[in-house]
Amino acid sequence: MEIALQEAHSAAARGEVPVGAVVTDAAGRVLAQAGNEVEARRDPSAHAEMLALRAAAATLGDKLLPEATLWVTLEPCAMCAQAIAFFRVKRLVFGAYDPKGGAVDHGPRLFTQPTCHHAPEVVGGVRERESAALLRGFFAGLR
Amino acid sequence: MEIALQEAHSAAARGEVPVGAVVTDAAGRVLAQAGNEVEARRDPSAHAEMLALRAAAATLGDKLLPEATLWVTLEPCAMCAQAIAFFRVKRLVFGAYDPKGGAVDHGPRLFTQPTCHHAPEVVGGVRERESAALLRGFFAGLR
Repeated sequence: MEIALQEAHSAAARGEVPVGAVVTDAAGRVLAQAGNEVEARRDPSAHAEMLALRAAAATLGDKLLPEATLWVTLEPCAMCAQAIAFFRVKRLVFGAYDPKGGAVDHGPRLFTQPTCHHAPEVVGGVRERESAALLRGFFAGLR
Repeated sequence: MEIALQEAHSAAARGEVPVGAVVTDAAGRVLAQAGNEVEARRDPSAHAEMLALRAAAATLGDKLLPEATLWVTLEPCAMCAQAIAFFRVKRLVFGAYDPKGGAVDHGPRLFTQPTCHHAPEVVGGVRERESAALLRGFFAGLR
């Protein structure tokens, strides 16, 4: 989660909403890491999770990540949560809860939907304070 | 929708689940078109809609597509539906309904969620029969 937080810090420094993500394998090795790149790519789908999942699959040369853990500083949205299910990620660890845009513990609670074909183990609130403080600081700076 | 169906046919010929998507602007001009590339890219997030939305934004040089219509041969999943909201797509036209994986008229019905910040106009069932027949034929061939 330390690396995910560093990615979030780097994202903030680039003027991106500060969210960072890391994918590790069963042994805890980092397969991929990414920060939010929505502004840099001018692509609203370039969330840290999407970039890290895609990069991790490329690293493994496999389409699925059944042994992987995704670490991300913010509760994933519906797009990223569905991607997590598609990549068959084993475990999701996230930092701050997101009552407005989150889709794991909020909104559609995607992994509890009867149509969801794969639900990872989920641990929320890990280094929540730092993750949330980064986001609050960023949005306060915009006002 | 004709072009989206052609993209779906091309996807099937490449061994991909046959789904095609097109993004048009307010004047009906094609901004981008794509077929499913999950197998080719070894990326379960490479749905036709995601590829077409990203390419359309690149064509326009803009992050948002508030004048655009997305045409797709299958009801979008939660990942693509959330991306449609993020790109602020004006109108979604889809072909076949997808009770198993769809997230517009089925499952989480994403655009009706209170946390959904943008909902496009939605027209479902356009050239539904051909879109569904393509998918049925593809999966029957796999058995």
